[in-house]
This record gives sequence, structure tokens and C-alpha cells, in this order.
Amino acid sequence: MKYALGIDYGTESARAVLIDLADGRELTQAVYPYADGVIDERLPSSGVRLEPDWALQNPQDYVRGFIETVRRVLAESKVNPQDIIGIGIDFTACTMLPTKADGTPLCQLPEWRANPHAWAKLWKHHAAQPEANRLNQIAGERGESWLARYGGKISSEWFFPKAMQILDEAPEVYQAADRLIEAADWTIWQLTGVETRNSCTAGYKAMWSKREGFPSPDFFAALDPRMRNIVAEKMSERILPIGRRAGGLTAAMAEATGLQPGTAVAVANVDAHVSVPAATVTSPGRMVMIMGTSTCHLVLGEEQRIVPGMCGVVEDGVIPGLFGYEAGQSCVGDHFAWFVENCVPAAYVAEAQAQGISLYQLLEAKAAQLKVGESGLLALDWWNGNRSVLVDVDLTGLLIGATLATKPEEIYRALIEATAFGTRVIIGAFQDNGVAVNELVAAGGLPERAKLLMQIYADVTGHQIRVVASQQAGALGSAMHGAVAAGAAAGGFDSIVAAAERMAALQETTYTPSPANKAMYDRLYAEYLTLHDYFGRGANDCMKRLKRIKLDALQ
Amino acid sequence: MKYALGIDYGTESARAVLIDLADGRELTQAVYPYADGVIDERLPSSGVRLEPDWALQNPQDYVRGFIETVRRVLAESKVNPQDIIGIGIDFTACTMLPTKADGTPLCQLPEWRANPHAWAKLWKHHAAQPEANRLNQIAGERGESWLARYGGKISSEWFFPKAMQILDEAPEVYQAADRLIEAADWTIWQLTGVETRNSCTAGYKAMWSKREGFPSPDFFAALDPRMRNIVAEKMSERILPIGRRAGGLTAAMAEATGLQPGTAVAVANVDAHVSVPAATVTSPGRMVMIMGTSTCHLVLGEEQRIVPGMCGVVEDGVIPGLFGYEAGQSCVGDHFAWFVENCVPAAYVAEAQAQGISLYQLLEAKAAQLKVGESGLLALDWWNGNRSVLVDVDLTGLLIGATLATKPEEIYRALIEATAFGTRVIIGAFQDNGVAVNELVAAGGLPERAKLLMQIYADVTGHQIRVVASQQAGALGSAMHGAVAAGAAAGGFDSIVAAAERMAALQETTYTPSPANKAMYDRLYAEYLTLHDYFGRGANDCMKRLKRIKLDALQ
Repeated sequence: MKYALGIDYGTESARAVLIDLADGRELTQAVYPYADGVIDERLPSSGVRLEPDWALQNPQDYVRGFIETVRRVLAESKVNPQDIIGIGIDFTACTMLPTKADGTPLCQLPEWRANPHAWAKLWKHHAAQPEANRLNQIAGERGESWLARYGGKISSEWFFPKAMQILDEAPEVYQAADRLIEAADWTIWQLTGVETRNSCTAGYKAMWSKREGFPSPDFFAALDPRMRNIVAEKMSERILPIGRRAGGLTAAMAEATGLQPGTAVAVANVDAHVSVPAATVTSPGRMVMIMGTSTCHLVLGEEQRIVPGMCGVVEDGVIPGLFGYEAGQSCVGDHFAWFVENCVPAAYVAEAQAQGISLYQLLEAKAAQLKVGESGLLALDWWNGNRSVLVDVDLTGLLIGATLATKPEEIYRALIEATAFGTRVIIGAFQDNGVAVNELVAAGGLPERAKLLMQIYADVTGHQIRVVASQQAGALGSAMHGAVAAGAAAGGFDSIVAAAERMAALQETTYTPSPANKAMYDRLYAEYLTLHDYFGRGANDCMKRLKRIKLDALQ
Repeated sequence: MKYALGIDYGTESARAVLIDLADGRELTQAVYPYADGVIDERLPSSGVRLEPDWALQNPQDYVRGFIETVRRVLAESKVNPQDIIGIGIDFTACTMLPTKADGTPLCQLPEWRANPHAWAKLWKHHAAQPEANRLNQIAGERGESWLARYGGKISSEWFFPKAMQILDEAPEVYQAADRLIEAADWTIWQLTGVETRNSCTAGYKAMWSKREGFPSPDFFAALDPRMRNIVAEKMSERILPIGRRAGGLTAAMAEATGLQPGTAVAVANVDAHVSVPAATVTSPGRMVMIMGTSTCHLVLGEEQRIVPGMCGVVEDGVIPGLFGYEAGQSCVGDHFAWFVENCVPAAYVAEAQAQGISLYQLLEAKAAQLKVGESGLLALDWWNGNRSVLVDVDLTGLLIGATLATKPEEIYRALIEATAFGTRVIIGAFQDNGVAVNELVAAGGLPERAKLLMQIYADVTGHQIRVVASQQAGALGSAMHGAVAAGAAAGGFDSIVAAAERMAALQETTYTPSPANKAMYDRLYAEYLTLHDYFGRGANDCMKRLKRIKLDALQ
């Protein structure tokens, strides 16, 4: 019996799961909520106040999280540490930090502790938008070829805008940083003592490609002359494909956790991307949707295609040897949470309590009673902007068709349908540009608890949907990569494809499109598309002008 | 000391108010809730079930309402009946019924009692839409000149569609009816023994004009050959201007109520229209808004202008000697009631309870904290279609600009603003077509309890707004007309203008536009107009297609 450990580093906590390599079965798991959580008001200890849109983390939480969760998993499972042959981790991204050459985060040094830029910038740190705007403008003007691989726009959440913000606002921190590094890669460094970079975050978040490398020094110099040699000076160009062994667990980490020293540790990965093989997908044709507060769509291809509006295409980014295409919807679970918090009347709360169910369950039960199209409502799912395919954070939500007879469950259903239409737009963009999508596989928290939503997605897209068996697809995928890093000779696997065949599984449940519902949804989708293009492609920039008015009003 | 009685016949009840002619002061009032209420499920006694969209009343409730309320008013006020010199009534319209030649409603005859078509069809009886569609199509095809006076479209709520429905569905009732008559006029007939018609309902609801009379027999024959002589056979062409004496109170009614026999009774009026002189408006330039669940806009002019999208223009329809222009918004108070019932979270209910205020008050207090434009939201106020200026019941509500940070009070304020923008469209249509609007006067239930709304209307329209002093503008206006019917010689007045000078008053409060807010609202209004025209004038008939899909879904 051999096992691997997968550690999933989320926004609020780290979760370790111990997996049986024979069948992907989960033996036990443990969660560590980060002691410093998401730092978005004041820095720990110094109490320095942060600006709006900032979101930081304390990198020590990543190390503590590893040690604590692994110790608990070992204690609970009673598995012999010798049988744990591999370790993989997945992470939010881009979450990045400045360190010294030996890997010490600047925020751990007394002289930098009170400087916000010395801490890890979390993926949802949104204060680098001016830098992202500048980067996009300059890249566009220079006709940078890599821009098309990212839907024509680099997000403020990504690596170089965050690095630019450090340089703009704290040049002394930029200067003091020997390394700017993804938190995922930094954590692997702490586990192995070896500095690596992984092809997934480098490709999706740092504009790197296997064939062209990073953007040129001339480009970086155009952003800021001081950045000309950022790659050579502060990054590593030793970028390994995912699944590759980064190193062996250090003696210190082994002692701290109870694991064996030298245990194979895979290079880091991204939480969504690592879920793809855990969803049994290792070849083109099936699109994986990781559905939570937002949705990440991943599909594989044999060739590089430019699909307008996707988030990125990266060779070896998801499965070595294939191109991994990523798209996204920025408001899915968040959409429903907003509705439940702000728009559900007290009578429904009482009704849910009387039935002993949640408001979500009550709304779903009521919405499930509705026939397709019966509400007369339609929404554009842009409450948090549009990631794919319009790549425009300034778009906002729209609801049309309301009457005095409109009920909350009708709006709720319209919001679900809107996200399904948004998914159909993404599928259509892939298909229209030569990337096959024939079936959908859903992972994440939402598919498990939102069966009506899953059926609506099947009906709207016309595609069959399967759901990943594991509730912890990220951790499972990480463990699979750990097993690949260990290799078949050690009782693991020699490829992620082989690991997926043995360890990944889908639930029996299949959501099959209803032809009658699909036909009705085709009519609604035509309306959605018309509004999508009218408001999203410049015919009427009402949403942007309303945002402009909002900003003026608040001045 | 002389007095007049005004009786306001609403949808659910009749209200009598005794008014002092010296100053319009209200002495006392009494309300009679109709015993049979709004009949929309089953007929009284027979239990016959009604189709959807039906809404009937029992005409006996009108007579009982008069007797009961007047007796109570007399008893409470202790006024000498000899000093009550005039009686006026106002009514919902078009509310109409079939009667025998002596005025006996068919529904009171045992042989017709179980036939729904024998009862009074209330204004909001909406089952005559197929007939209205047929009427509009035929009138359009024939180029009927009167159609332009009604914004190009006759409502299913009006007189002839309701008459057509009787003929279509119950030709035996149509045949048995010697008279088809407005309930308002029928009630005056019961009080006086004299059959009259009033110029207000005839003009606004039955396509009559002082200069052209009713549509021609040829037109009616085109609707249905059996209707060719409907006017000659079943209606009276003795149409009196409002304020005219219909007759004296009958001995029987005097005995039943305690009033003096022969007391002057004015011809009937419509609830909204009668409020205009009660709002001190007897000349052009000031638009009266009667604001409740919906809003009725009335403004006077010296000449007949065709204003696209208004509800109607009627000579002598509001003030004798002037043209009365009517426009409307079909969803105002209803809009807010819908929101409060369906979209306000339990936490707000708790907060309102803790503060001991209503949800409306809580929402208003929160919405009042917002700066103009700060929410980034904009709505089209079409939750119940659009009456003016688009005259399209198939339009529906739209909300744009929502984000995950959108709060209920922001949506609430956007709905208020949307109705204000709708009012501005109506004012613009009048102004653009030569009907002056320089100031607004508000009456009805809403202005009293919605001060934020009033200020928003002032800011959006750029017009000063005054509010009618009386809480019962309809009943006051009716009493004023009763005093005019009595005449100056009897201690009343010889004209409604003279009555208004003495009896009508405005509150001191004036809502004055804020130039800064007006400037922001101008920007929002430009966005509103673009969406208004895009969705309302055919560029994108999405709302209608969604309704079509809805109907198909429900089949």
C-alpha cells in the first residue's frame, strides 16, 4: 500500500489529504486556517493600515499549514510514513512575495516587517490595476506577440503588475528583493530546500511560454527602465513542467512533520489546473469547470490556438505535452451568495427555517418548479465584471423582464441561467476557434450542492455533464502529482495520465440535456447573446458610463 | 355656513367627506368597504367561477356605500342637512355595467345573476384584451381620426373593449341590456332618478369628443355588425360637462340618508381628474401628478395638441373650457410595494423593527444617505408595462449596473429614480408638442409619505413640486363640483375656478431642485433615454420575445 499527500492552499486555509495510490481513495484530511488569514486591514504586529483593494498573506502560514496538517493526517491515519512516497501542493495564484536569495521572505526581516510590500500579495490583491493598465497599454502599443495568448489583456491579479506595484510604491523593497516568487514555488522551496518554478504559474500568471520564454528585457524596460532585467535578476528561469520532482523533503521538514526525509516533492501547481487530471481529464475534448465563488474552465488541445477572450493558453500548463486553455467567469457562487444575502425576503427565511433547510435549498426547490422561460426573466451575469470572453472588469449586472409578479426564486433561477449562458459563450469561443469541447466535467464546491444548476448547465449548453467523484479535487490532483514525482519505480506513476487512470474517478450521476429545455434555452440564449454583445462590445457603453458617474459621485 | 359632500368611489371602498365651502376644510369623513369587494374569483350567491383577469363589482355596493357613509357623516358632524347644498362623486373608470331601461342592473335580476357579464366590470378587469387588440387594429386600418387623441391605442380597460367582450362572450346579456353605462353615471342616476353621462368618462374612456361625438356607426359595425348602433341603442348622447347639475337628490335617497330632497347633485367625475381643481390647478402650465400605486398626470391646455403616447386629450374633460391632457405611469407605488415584499432581506426587517419604523421608512432612510449616481444602478420602470409615452403593456422591468456590492437600498433608490425619469419623459413629450409644463403639483397617497421620492422627482425633472393640502383630494374635488352644481345663488359657486380659489390649497412645503443633483441626473437620464428607446421603440424587442417565450413555456 502506497500513499501520497496533496496539500491544497486556499484563500483562508490549507488542507492536507492523504490519498491511497491504488484507487485515489481519501484516507484522512486536516485543515489549517491561516493564523493571519487574509490581511486586508492592518499588518500583523506593526498594525500598519492597508489601502483599499489590498490583500496580503503571511508566508509563515504556508509552512505552518504544511507542518500542522501533515502531522494531524499522520496521527489520524496511522499510515507508515515510509509508505507515503510523494507530496504535491496546489495554490491560489498569482500569490507572490519578495524574498532574499536564501528564500527568507522580506516580511520576516525586522527592517521590512512594517512595509506592506514586503508581504505576500494574495491573488485577490486588486491594488495593482494602474500598473496592469500601463502594462496592457504598452504591450498593445509594442505589439507584443504573447498578448494574444492571454485574451489580449493581462489581469491586475497577475505577477508582473504586482511586481510593478512594488517598484512604483516601494522601490526600496524591490531593490532589497533578491527574488520575486510565486508563493506556490516559495513553499516548495521551503519543503525541499531547492528553488524551482512551475510551468503552470509561470505560463498562466507570468507570461512565460515554453517556446518563447518570458517577455523581452526591452519590453520590461518600456514598463520601467529599472525593470529591464527583472527576469535575470529576480526570477529563476529554471521552470519545470508540472509533475516533475522538485526535490526531496528536507530533514528539518521531515522531523517537523514525521514524514521521511527525501520523500519526493513535486513542483507546485495551481488549484484549478491541478483538478483537471483529478477530474479524469488528460486529453482534449472534455472541458473541466471548477465551480465555486467563480468558475475556472480548463480544456486541453493538441495545438496552440488563439481564442479571443480566454485567460491563457500554456503549453505543458495542465498536462505535459498538451496545451492547456483557461477561461473564467468571475461571478458564479458569489452571484448566488449576493442574492441570498441581499434579496431574499423574511418570509422565505421563515419558510426555510420551518422546513429545516437552507435558503439556498429553499430557493432551489422553488426554482426547480419553474419551467424554462416561464419567468420571462433574463440576466447578464456580470455582477463582478466579465472575465471570458469580454475580459472587462467594468461590466456590471443586468436583469431584464421583471414584472410585479416576479418572485425571488425566478430571479434566482435567472441568475443561475445567466452563468450557464456565460459558460455557453466560452464553449462557443473555444469551438469556433478550433478547440474541441464535447463534454463537461464539473469540480469544486458548487456541483455537489446545486443539482438544479448542473441540470440547467446541461440544458443550456447541450452537453452532458459529469461530476468529479472527489470532494477535494485540488488536493487529489496534488497528491497525483506527488505520486508522479515519486515515479513508478517507487510505487507511484511515471505520468499524470497513468496516475489519472488509477486514481481519478467521476460520480455515476450524469446530467443529460433535455432536448425540450435545450430548445427553449436556445431562444433565451439568442436574447442573452444580443444583450451580451450590445452592452459588452461597445454598442452601448452604458455600464461604463454608470461606473464613471459613480466615481464622480463619490468624489 | 354651507357645506358640500364629496364621495370618492375607490377600488375597495367608498369614502364620503363633508367639506366646508368657506375654506375647503374637511369636517368629517366615513368609509364603507364594499360588502362584495373586488369580485375576481367567484360570483356572489351563485358561486360561478371567474376566468383569470376578471374583476367585477356589485353595483349595490355603490348605493349602499352612499347611504351608509352619508348617514355616518351627518351623525358625526351634526351639520344641519339644510346647509349641505351640493353633492359630487368621483369614481374609478372605466367601470361599467349593463342595465335595463329603468336603470336596474342586470345582475340584480334573478335570470342574469349567475352570468358574470351581468355584473359591473371594474376598471382593472383585464379580460377584454383580445377585444382591445381587435378594436385597435380595425381603428388603425380605418384611419380613425380619434385614435391620435388616445396616444394611438385604446386600453383593454376602457368602455368599448369591455362592451365588445360582453357581445363576444354573452350576446344574450348584450341583447338584454338596454343600457351600457359607466358605474359613475349609473350611481348619479340612482341618486337623482335622472340618467346622465359626464364628459370626463365619455371623453377619456369612451372615445367621445365634444366636437366629433362618438366614433361612427360604420366603425362600430366594422368591429361587429351587431354593434353598429350601440350608441343610439344602448348609450345616452346627453353628455354634460363636469360640474353641471345632474339633478336633485330623490326623496327616497333623502329619506335613506337624512339629506334634504332636491339637494343639487353634480354629474359624475373620475377620481384622478377631479383632483386637479382640488390641487388648485384650473389653468395651463402646472401638471398634477396623482401618485399612488400608479401615477396619473393631468395638465391643461388652451388648444388641442396631439402628444404622442398620452392617454387622452378631452375638451372639458377636467376643467370646462380647457383641454385636459392625461398621461400615466402604470407602476409607481406598486413598484416599491413589489420590492418591499419580494426583495428586502430579513436583516432589514429586524433593523426596521428594532428602530420601530416600517421597511419603507428604513429603505428611504438608507437610500437618502446615497449620493446621486453613487450606486451605479439604473432601472427602466416598466414592471407593469409602460403607459406613457410608449403605450405598451408588454414592456417589462430592467435593472442595470448591479455588482456584488449592490445593496437593497441602492436598488430601491434606483426604482424611485426610474419612475422619476419616466415622469420626465412624459413632461418632455408634453413640452415638445406645445403643452406647457412649468411646475408640478402632487396629490395622492405617495407624496405624503415619500419625501425622498418627492425630492428626487424635483431633482430629476428640474421642476419645483408643491403638494396638495388635502389628504382626500378626490373627495374634495367632488365636493367642489357639488358646490358648483348648487351654484352661487344657493351658497355654492358658479364655476369650478371660483370653487378652487376658495376651497383648494397647497401645503407650505416646496420641493426645489438641487442644481448639483439635477446635473448628475441629467447624465443618468441620458442613459435612461437611450435604454428607453432601445428597448421601447423596436431596436431590440427582447422584452416582448421574453414574454412570448413565457407564454410558450406555460402552454
